[in-house]
Amino acid sequence: MTIEFPPVEPPSEDVRRQAVARHAVLTKPAGSLGKLEELGVWVSACQGVCPPRPFTRPRVVVFAGDHGVARHGVSAYPSEVTGQMVANFLDGGAAVNVLATVAGATVRVVDVAVDSDTAIGDAKIRRGSGSIDREDALTLEEAEQAVELGRRLADDEVDGGADLLIAGDMGIGNTTPAAVLIAALTGSEPVAVVGRGTGIDDRGWMRKTAAIRDALRRARPVLSDPVRLLATASGADIAAMAGFLAQAAVRKTPVILDGVVVGAAAMMAEELAPGAREWWVAGHRSVEPAHSIALNHLSLEPLLDFEMRLGEGSGAVAALPLVAMATKVLAEMATFEGAGVSGPA
Amino acid sequence: MTIEFPPVEPPSEDVRRQAVARHAVLTKPAGSLGKLEELGVWVSACQGVCPPRPFTRPRVVVFAGDHGVARHGVSAYPSEVTGQMVANFLDGGAAVNVLATVAGATVRVVDVAVDSDTAIGDAKIRRGSGSIDREDALTLEEAEQAVELGRRLADDEVDGGADLLIAGDMGIGNTTPAAVLIAALTGSEPVAVVGRGTGIDDRGWMRKTAAIRDALRRARPVLSDPVRLLATASGADIAAMAGFLAQAAVRKTPVILDGVVVGAAAMMAEELAPGAREWWVAGHRSVEPAHSIALNHLSLEPLLDFEMRLGEGSGAVAALPLVAMATKVLAEMATFEGAGVSGPA
Repeated sequence: MTIEFPPVEPPSEDVRRQAVARHAVLTKPAGSLGKLEELGVWVSACQGVCPPRPFTRPRVVVFAGDHGVARHGVSAYPSEVTGQMVANFLDGGAAVNVLATVAGATVRVVDVAVDSDTAIGDAKIRRGSGSIDREDALTLEEAEQAVELGRRLADDEVDGGADLLIAGDMGIGNTTPAAVLIAALTGSEPVAVVGRGTGIDDRGWMRKTAAIRDALRRARPVLSDPVRLLATASGADIAAMAGFLAQAAVRKTPVILDGVVVGAAAMMAEELAPGAREWWVAGHRSVEPAHSIALNHLSLEPLLDFEMRLGEGSGAVAALPLVAMATKVLAEMATFEGAGVSGPA
Repeated sequence: MTIEFPPVEPPSEDVRRQAVARHAVLTKPAGSLGKLEELGVWVSACQGVCPPRPFTRPRVVVFAGDHGVARHGVSAYPSEVTGQMVANFLDGGAAVNVLATVAGATVRVVDVAVDSDTAIGDAKIRRGSGSIDREDALTLEEAEQAVELGRRLADDEVDGGADLLIAGDMGIGNTTPAAVLIAALTGSEPVAVVGRGTGIDDRGWMRKTAAIRDALRRARPVLSDPVRLLATASGADIAAMAGFLAQAAVRKTPVILDGVVVGAAAMMAEELAPGAREWWVAGHRSVEPAHSIALNHLSLEPLLDFEMRLGEGSGAVAALPLVAMATKVLAEMATFEGAGVSGPA
């Protein structure tokens, strides 16, 4: 099996121009809604239609997986939390569930590589990914299977009517592979990408930095081959997310990105399917230092700067109402002519 | 008549502590939702109950009024637009209407001082306020009436079940008095507070700066008396908004502030009812330079930085879903114990 994505087409430039022109005749001074206007124009261009259609089925897919490196003291929480949180997602008790009810999105959780039995084990690639500071995360075949799983999930969702996608992550230890991937693809040093994750102390921070350094040494030789890089230094959950984000772009479906783990997967998706990033907006800027490096690399400016660092897709879902409002404003506001309002003097 | 507000009580410090403690037992690393956690804690303290109650009736009140100074070339739009936009609000075609449908708020428009006949003229204080560069905006009696009108509107809304309030502005020329009030209360120079408003050109900018300078000269001698300052340099719409925001605090109802015009009214409300600002969050940072000065003066940090400059309450309504999400997260997320999720290792 070899992974190949078809070429990604950009959002419609014609429709983008139509949307900009439409904004100029709505009952407000031109440009006065700032970033809301830009967002609405982007949605319109993604949908290929102006006025754009308000979203009817925004969908969050949470990719759960464990990481062997978590056994080596790089996280504040034990690995068992990953499986426990999967149950919490299914019960609707996690942050992303509550945020999604307000934002009008629904949440699906996929057990990609949880290291315990869950109620949703059907898609599991393996139980936990390898400890990337000393071994590969995945075999090449597993990496391909994981990317294919993510691709299939995106197809499922789009075929099921999803008109906006959000990927979320759940996996104790997952900011370590995320930091490694971002450092590898941007030539950054371990100390520039390491963060506190769920809240490690100073000793944990030192262990995490050393793990990133060791994993980075293993990752550098395979930099030019995205699937090999995923096998060496990611995890099945992150590889699946990369496939999901790449396929969302192939399917011309807009995506709101979350924080550092999704950001790392997004950089890999852009490697797998160049141009995919045109289909994404950044929901927020996480406090994880590697996230800002990833956003910069992808040329994405975040909508929110809320000092969040939870994952689960929470920062993307928090930004979803802004994208929904931007879309509706462009779709439903009155025009100067229609409302009988005078233009500039 | 003399305007006097009862002392403003602060949000509950006890409940604030309870809310902080509750955040620590919800299924996420402590602090990982960043500003969403702080917002939820604030709402809980305002409501005086933890967990907080999700909002059921967020309400936007748009204060419409004309400004004589608009006749002197300080705005890109003619004054007739104010009355035309009132009709547009009533038809649901303005930006704030569309934003409010997504955010789950309802919108009320009040004609405080529109210089034309509108369908909602019952509360009108006068037809247009005076041109503040050369005459008082209002008589002292009108200023008092306007503040009382705002106070009554806040009472109406809270008595009608509103559990979160947003004030919006509509009035061609209104960024000129807003800039004057902010400059007067902060000792700023005209060039530091003048902005492009709805989009004036360079010549208009010069005329506006001169108008601000002249109005500021008239305002400075009455700085220490808030009602006199409102009479000299505001407008009936802004004076009513100040009364509304002060009374919202008296009635212990949380408020999301909008941009520069509401910001000026908020500074006046804080003069009328010291401590009122504890009941407010700033929805966004407008591109109007005076707005940042006002936020700084009120020690408020904006939720959004979206380069908006429309008014109508639009920036506050854009931020409403974030406040709603922050409230629901604190109210409805599972606890570690309830969900059987392990804490830090």
